[in-house]
Formats: sequence, C-alpha cells, structure tokens
Amino acid sequence: MNIILIEKQEIQGSRVLLTDRRAKHLIKVLQVQAGDSVRIGIIDGPKGRGRVAALCSRYPFQVELEVEFGEETAGKPPIDLLLALPRPIMLRRIFSQAAALGVGTIFITHAQRVEKSFWSATLLNEEEYRPHLLQGLEQAVDTRVPEVLVYKRFKPFVEDVLPGRIKEYSHLLIAHPGSPATLKSVITERPERILLAVGPEGGWIEYEIDRFAEYGFNSFSMGERILKVDTAVVALHGRLSECRENFT
Amino acid sequence: MNIILIEKQEIQGSRVLLTDRRAKHLIKVLQVQAGDSVRIGIIDGPKGRGRVAALCSRYPFQVELEVEFGEETAGKPPIDLLLALPRPIMLRRIFSQAAALGVGTIFITHAQRVEKSFWSATLLNEEEYRPHLLQGLEQAVDTRVPEVLVYKRFKPFVEDVLPGRIKEYSHLLIAHPGSPATLKSVITERPERILLAVGPEGGWIEYEIDRFAEYGFNSFSMGERILKVDTAVVALHGRLSECRENFT
Repeated sequence: MNIILIEKQEIQGSRVLLTDRRAKHLIKVLQVQAGDSVRIGIIDGPKGRGRVAALCSRYPFQVELEVEFGEETAGKPPIDLLLALPRPIMLRRIFSQAAALGVGTIFITHAQRVEKSFWSATLLNEEEYRPHLLQGLEQAVDTRVPEVLVYKRFKPFVEDVLPGRIKEYSHLLIAHPGSPATLKSVITERPERILLAVGPEGGWIEYEIDRFAEYGFNSFSMGERILKVDTAVVALHGRLSECRENFT
Repeated sequence: MNIILIEKQEIQGSRVLLTDRRAKHLIKVLQVQAGDSVRIGIIDGPKGRGRVAALCSRYPFQVELEVEFGEETAGKPPIDLLLALPRPIMLRRIFSQAAALGVGTIFITHAQRVEKSFWSATLLNEEEYRPHLLQGLEQAVDTRVPEVLVYKRFKPFVEDVLPGRIKEYSHLLIAHPGSPATLKSVITERPERILLAVGPEGGWIEYEIDRFAEYGFNSFSMGERILKVDTAVVALHGRLSECRENFT
C-alpha cells in the first residue's frame, strides 16, 4: 500500500478516521506515530498528504488523519481493454495489474471459447472486483478507478455498444497470435486513445475477428509464443506504452 | 500445456512412454485417441510431433508416442534478468512468466531491501523451481529452459561474477523508478543482448545503483507508477521487446 485511498464521504471537515485494514497497515507496516505524514488520495479525486493526528496502535486499530489535497485529478489513462471473460483467478490478477499499470475502461464480453461457467463468477459483481482494482491503485499510487463494463452477450455488445464507443479511440487493436502484423505496423502515428482487445484462452474465432475488423480493429501479434491472458495483458500494456511514448 | 516437453533420455528408439501429468493432460484435457498427433519438444532441444501409438485412458494413465523431431533448437532469447531476490510467491510467478516470455538467464542476488528470510525459500532449489520454468515453456511452446544462477551475496556477485558476464551484453539496464531517463533514451541502437536489473520491493539503494553504474549499467524508469516486481518484469519485457523489434 503505497498510498492510502479514501472515499470522499469519509472526510469530516479536514479529518478522516480510519478503522479498517488501512489503519492496520499504517500501524503495523508503516509504524506511523502521531505527527507523521503519509501519502493519501481521494478515490477518483486528487492526491494529498495526511498527518497522523491521533492513533490507537492496539486492536481495534484506529488512525485519525488531518488531510490536505492538491487540485489535480490524474487524467484517464490512454489505454482501454476489451477482454473475452477470462477464468476468475486470472481476471482477479488482471484487475489489480491493469489498475496498477493504468487502464481507463475494461470491457468484458463473451466469446465462443469462453467457458460458460465463468459467467457465474461472483468476481463479476462490483463489490467483489472493486477491492482488486483499489489494490492495484494503492500499489501504483494512483486514485483513478478503471471503469468496468460487463456485457454477457457478444453480438449485442459488438453491434449495439461498441459502435457508440469506438469514436473515442485513435487505435482499435486486437492481439491475435498468428497475425502477420506487428504492433509497429499497425501504430504508425501517435496514439491518443487505444482500445486493445485480448481474446480468451485458445483465441478469438474467425467470426469474432471478422466482426471486430468490420468496426475497424486491426489484428497484430507479439510473436509465436502463446501466453496466458494475464501475462499477455501486462506485456501488451508495456509494448503499447513504449510504442506510444516513442511518438512524443 | 501447449507442447509436451520430454527429456532426451526418455526417448527409447523412436518412442516415448508418458505415465505422469503429461499423460493425464493428453487424455483428460486434449482427449487424444490412438493415431492423433501432438506437438512435442525435447527440453533444451528441437520441437517435433508425437503420434499416439498406444494409450491407457483410465488411471493409471499412459500414453506412448511415436516421436519425430526437427533439426533446429531455438536460439537463446536476447533478454536476461538480474533480480534482487523477490518474495517466493512472486519469484514463482516470475519463473513461469519469464520462461513463457523468453529469457536466457535469470541471475538472482541479494540487495539491502531483500528480506533475509526469503533466502530460506525452498523455491531456490532447482528441483523446486524447474517445474515452474517448464510450465512457462509448455504454455509458450518453447523448449529452452532459462538458466538460473543464484548468488546469495551482493558484493561478491557484483565484483567477481558480473565483470565476467557483462561483455555478453550490448545493453546493461536498471529499472529504477525515479530515474529521469526513459527506455528510448538509453537504447539508441539495436540491442543484441540486454541484461535488465530489477530491484526489490522498495528499490535498490543508492550504493547498489552506484555499483551497477560502475560496470556500465544505465538507469531508466517507466514512469511514476510503483509496480510489484512480477508485474514490472512482464511489463519491462514487453517494453524491451518492442524497443528491440523496432530497430529491425
């Protein structure tokens, strides 16, 4: 936890009273004392500092912070993800890693090769996945929670939702092992916003690739290696970021 | 398991008899039948095909393959890692992901901010870590096992081991959050081989960075986000690969 994240409504005047795992972390891991100053941030808001005004260092842990915030909230990261629903254990890891790396929106939809049983995962409920997103933000010292949008049916998602969103993007990309194109060949000018589609284990089927292609998605591959979805997402995020930064 | 890996000594004439998790995978997951052909590879050797000659599809599982191999063994991947020993759970993930992404050698050493207790991890024994490396190769359809070299003391490693190895590399890099340099600024010509040093949670200390700098390592950063070591390794591998491929 490299930043303590708080909800706006937790602020009373200029104070915040922490009584949960954040208080425990401050006391047990950071071993704060009264007067110490720690990095804090309002979820989806600005970062700031919190001065420890009072604390109870034994169970039940309690830390009262005198808080102060900057003006600025970070902008939306320039990369969004479109995932065929991965198996829950992988999705959990993707949530925290995507939040840590910086992702604006995560679209999740179905694909032919997604196991139907994955759709009953409790992790698809906001109260279940939000903690994983916050964990990633706490790691990376960010406050902006990725937006998560779940569409259980592929066709309605592609036909009714996607068309309304794609104008936000300068680049629509599908990672597709086997594609002859490289990232360099599909990103020839500085990307403003990128939507990156990553398929399920086993990949998208031809029909799905074709539907994405109709809306202007370009396929590319990172080479011949077959990667797990969570590894692929992080490696691709690194490649896209490098690509993008090289244009500036 | 996208390729069945076998040890050279398992081949008897032109046949291999599998009786372990590989046999189970072929029967339960891939549901092979006699006559089917599957992708196989000799560990640290060439890839090939195995034709199912006989099988026992009930416990105890057994699959006999008639095997045939190509000539070529893949070259050593152009990226090596130098890690300050991460906590075991993270190291395990790094082993399989690094093998999947392609890494030649993984040097592991101590650093000021490495918890001493990590050095008692059983995972540092070859019989413990090798399965994780093989898992990564089985995922990525590769046969070349990354070399793992463990040096428990930082100073002897840096002073006695490193000098003998650095001539292999065109680029010696340290990922160091806070460095003002970008990857682009430290890779100005096509890298042949890269050695990438990644610090512990909390980063390298000044003394360590200075020692690496003496041997010609260049620091760079990916930005302000603080990442977990396993996320950082995968994202950096992606960035380095993209950087490298852009020179070709």
